[in-house]
Amino acid sequence: MDTPVLDRVNGPEDLKKLDVVDLRELAAEIRPLLITKLSQVGGHVGPNLGVVELTIALHTVFNSPVDHIVWDVSHQSYTHKILTGRKQAWTDPEHYDDVGPFTDPAESPHNYFNIGHTSTSIALADGMAVARDLRGSHENIIPVIGDGALSGGLAYEALSNAATLHSNLIIVVNDNEMSIAEDHGGLYKGLAELRETNGQSRNNLFKALGLDYKYVEGGNDIPSLLAAFTEVKDIDHPIVVHIHTKKGLGFAPAEANEEGWHWHAPFNPETGVALKQNDKPTYADVVLDELDSQIANNQPVVAITAAIPGGFHLKKFAAKHPDRYFDVGIAEQQSITFAAGLAEQGARPVAFENTTFLQRAYDQLSHDLGINKLPAVIVYAGGRVTGGDPTHQGTFDLAMLTNIPGMTVLTPANAAELRAMLQWALQQTAGPVAIRLPRGNADAEPLDADFDVNQMRVVNAGSQVALLAVGSMLPLAVEVAHRLQDKDGVNATIIDPRRVDALVDQNTLAKLQADHKLVVTLEEDSLAGGFGEKVSRYFGPTAVRTLNLGAKRRFDHEQTRDELMTEYQLTPDTATTAIEKLL
Amino acid sequence: MDTPVLDRVNGPEDLKKLDVVDLRELAAEIRPLLITKLSQVGGHVGPNLGVVELTIALHTVFNSPVDHIVWDVSHQSYTHKILTGRKQAWTDPEHYDDVGPFTDPAESPHNYFNIGHTSTSIALADGMAVARDLRGSHENIIPVIGDGALSGGLAYEALSNAATLHSNLIIVVNDNEMSIAEDHGGLYKGLAELRETNGQSRNNLFKALGLDYKYVEGGNDIPSLLAAFTEVKDIDHPIVVHIHTKKGLGFAPAEANEEGWHWHAPFNPETGVALKQNDKPTYADVVLDELDSQIANNQPVVAITAAIPGGFHLKKFAAKHPDRYFDVGIAEQQSITFAAGLAEQGARPVAFENTTFLQRAYDQLSHDLGINKLPAVIVYAGGRVTGGDPTHQGTFDLAMLTNIPGMTVLTPANAAELRAMLQWALQQTAGPVAIRLPRGNADAEPLDADFDVNQMRVVNAGSQVALLAVGSMLPLAVEVAHRLQDKDGVNATIIDPRRVDALVDQNTLAKLQADHKLVVTLEEDSLAGGFGEKVSRYFGPTAVRTLNLGAKRRFDHEQTRDELMTEYQLTPDTATTAIEKLL
Repeated sequence: MDTPVLDRVNGPEDLKKLDVVDLRELAAEIRPLLITKLSQVGGHVGPNLGVVELTIALHTVFNSPVDHIVWDVSHQSYTHKILTGRKQAWTDPEHYDDVGPFTDPAESPHNYFNIGHTSTSIALADGMAVARDLRGSHENIIPVIGDGALSGGLAYEALSNAATLHSNLIIVVNDNEMSIAEDHGGLYKGLAELRETNGQSRNNLFKALGLDYKYVEGGNDIPSLLAAFTEVKDIDHPIVVHIHTKKGLGFAPAEANEEGWHWHAPFNPETGVALKQNDKPTYADVVLDELDSQIANNQPVVAITAAIPGGFHLKKFAAKHPDRYFDVGIAEQQSITFAAGLAEQGARPVAFENTTFLQRAYDQLSHDLGINKLPAVIVYAGGRVTGGDPTHQGTFDLAMLTNIPGMTVLTPANAAELRAMLQWALQQTAGPVAIRLPRGNADAEPLDADFDVNQMRVVNAGSQVALLAVGSMLPLAVEVAHRLQDKDGVNATIIDPRRVDALVDQNTLAKLQADHKLVVTLEEDSLAGGFGEKVSRYFGPTAVRTLNLGAKRRFDHEQTRDELMTEYQLTPDTATTAIEKLL
Repeated sequence: MDTPVLDRVNGPEDLKKLDVVDLRELAAEIRPLLITKLSQVGGHVGPNLGVVELTIALHTVFNSPVDHIVWDVSHQSYTHKILTGRKQAWTDPEHYDDVGPFTDPAESPHNYFNIGHTSTSIALADGMAVARDLRGSHENIIPVIGDGALSGGLAYEALSNAATLHSNLIIVVNDNEMSIAEDHGGLYKGLAELRETNGQSRNNLFKALGLDYKYVEGGNDIPSLLAAFTEVKDIDHPIVVHIHTKKGLGFAPAEANEEGWHWHAPFNPETGVALKQNDKPTYADVVLDELDSQIANNQPVVAITAAIPGGFHLKKFAAKHPDRYFDVGIAEQQSITFAAGLAEQGARPVAFENTTFLQRAYDQLSHDLGINKLPAVIVYAGGRVTGGDPTHQGTFDLAMLTNIPGMTVLTPANAAELRAMLQWALQQTAGPVAIRLPRGNADAEPLDADFDVNQMRVVNAGSQVALLAVGSMLPLAVEVAHRLQDKDGVNATIIDPRRVDALVDQNTLAKLQADHKLVVTLEEDSLAGGFGEKVSRYFGPTAVRTLNLGAKRRFDHEQTRDELMTEYQLTPDTATTAIEKLL
């Protein structure tokens, strides 16, 4: 691809030498680079295509990194990376992996934070502005937040606090009329009115929160953006600059289906057709199938998502049961406390969550569901060793959930267990139940008819060594047991604990204590605060030794899942070796 | 006290028989009851005195518990309790303890939730309304939220979602112009404008979020309230009824100092003078004293609170350092992410938190501070076995904090350690540090000159048995050691671990393994996810046995601290007995 203008741009300072014609040409050069790389490696398509002009204008008017641009969520920062010395990661396929999908201070002085959760940018900028004022300097602080991220409570808390500052803060609201899925909530009525009235509507959230406000309709028009930013540069008080952009601009399939192209796996850049199709049923499909059955039996089931219906195929559910489907927007706190209200009134809410975003609702899980013993069901994805970016790391689920009193946490090892657990969770009324969704395609096993929440499942009754394998670790335990049998002549007990928040199966625990010298736990989540530590505490006063294998208490940055599993001794070789040392 | 009108009121149905003259008399009878009991047992003075008329009017117009009133925070629900069959808990000192300070479904069918954290009521009501619609019924759902609680992000998420409902929801905003401390944030400029314009101001947060809106100036005037509620009763869509009340109304000291009387210890009901004065320096004073020293040495220290300056004496700090003091309102997420922004720019933020409210910021602690390794300091109170209400239970601090990667958690046992830890936390730049504030008055010990974050403090070097005592448990360990010496002839090792998020002191750990058969941990927080489990995991593969003593994974309701400490084997008798069983 020829990129004559981009070839002259190695940093923001080079943009200042370009005229509007060049800047437009630059945008036209960047878009194909984005699409080409995205088509090969996947990523956030729509968000990045929508902010090409916005990013060019910001870097033309402001002086990054002296002026500080903070990208909310930061999944839309590709053009920012291209313009700040990292273009090779798009122009040269050999260097595609040189940069991550989010901002990362280790990558560039133009990045300030690792960010992968939404709605934090304004709060971060509030702090940066106060620190700047304390040291008496005057640079511009510019958080850039999408309209989807505005629905998160932290954005509101930060807007309200921004209004109390008396110095420069330029809050750019990138309004592309979309959350991850379509927008949900009264907030978006107000934003739509502002767009329709060129910013003149009476109902103005930002003004109601005490902030100065400016509207820019031409969010993909470089001259409009340059004019707006030039006007607010070095302003002496906080202001919201509300900019109307088009998500997915420049790639027809992404413009036509904004939700489907928010994030996309590798695709044919001509047609937009995904390179791999998966028509097999997933574990989420097992859940949805069971919910259909429950509804057919007149159960008052309600499905809730905080703006991530796609991963759970919830649009299928919504089409069938529109009055039972609630996308609350990016608002995880609301998703859980809303479920609490539903459950108190006898409905059966099922909240579909991603574990890393569910962290936003920790207090709601404890205070609203836990204390109140309300039977909401939380089906969550992502509880596993993920590799990749620490902002989406999935190893903290059990440390977060299993220590909340009254929260029953279930870790199905297969589809049969998953369905049995869900049936149980929806018929009991004792309290909240979290179910960790296995990953990948679901097998077609029949229902686990023996499921009992208070009993572990003994897969093999052996002696000497016991392997307690959490959910997905069951195949590993089976393989390790084979090796222990073959190499060491040990007939290891294999147990699927099924429930991991508490050790309540006294019969099985007594047998472990009576017949075993070593109890090993295997879990692909943080050892600190996880399941294994509960087992070690239990056996601590006894003669039974314990070995907890699992993830370190650490944010992982660049390692792959395979590398991490090896380091964490969660492969057949490494786990067997660790156990043999204690035989 | 004569209460001729109240004598005729045993439930909301009796209010319907009273005329306005009677209802006003009823308010005049209730206030002295509130003040008298509050003066003897302490409690939320201002919030309850402000809503006497509001509560009477709600129960006169609506039909609780068919109609559902949900009190946000629920610390203002005393009159609600008086009017719904629980008046004896105010009229008869023998029955003062019959009811709790918050709503609790176990107490009455007029309560729906245990609530003690703010900003949840609208989200709960959203869920209740949807459940009602699903079952096809039509009762009124009425969350009552104070203006202070409106600053929490969950309230905003819930308002925006409420606007998408198409059925009855009556959101009463009780605007008394105050958070716990004075209001902070642009939100409150908007509310003030609404009050000043009788609800006509252009800048209307509620309308901007897509909601219908009605203003009632006479929030302590029964006829105004009756008229307003009668008008909105059975409304077919969500509406905000914004009511202007006077916090502390009817008790002169509380009217004169609204912040000081938000919550108050027992006092002389004539003068308002507290029955017990405490002039001794607290641990919070030690922190503030150290911050003064740091600022005198030109450290860019910034103090942050989420609307609870009182417990930390932060108003003293604010008076001395107004440009370094930030009360972000009830907005714990903001308090932490704001600190992240400050720290990234080189300031030294110190966030003063209460552990139970800090749960709101779990994701911010992890994603914004933890991943980014930002050196913010969190000084928090309340980490202990509290007794009393589960919504303010303090035993979850270590399970919340110590499993977040990169979060150093320190548990000082005395003022000398506290100051040394704070000095260290403010000079290091490796990452966030949480310091659990001891309770009570601070001794005047000199600085702990030996403090090293990577070394445990060995208080007594013994053998056989080691006692690892977290913070406040050190005196217990000393006493238990005496008993073990006297009764069993064991010279127990006593260790103050100082740092509880990780076991990094390899020398001491090696000595424990070499010379000890039993390692006992003592902590007044949840065993599940806490410090002891980390110790049990560490020694699990060895011959050393472990015993973890601490709080159960349970929400405690009515037990006292003493009862709980006995149950948790954290008294000299119980702990010694538990240990002796393993000798």
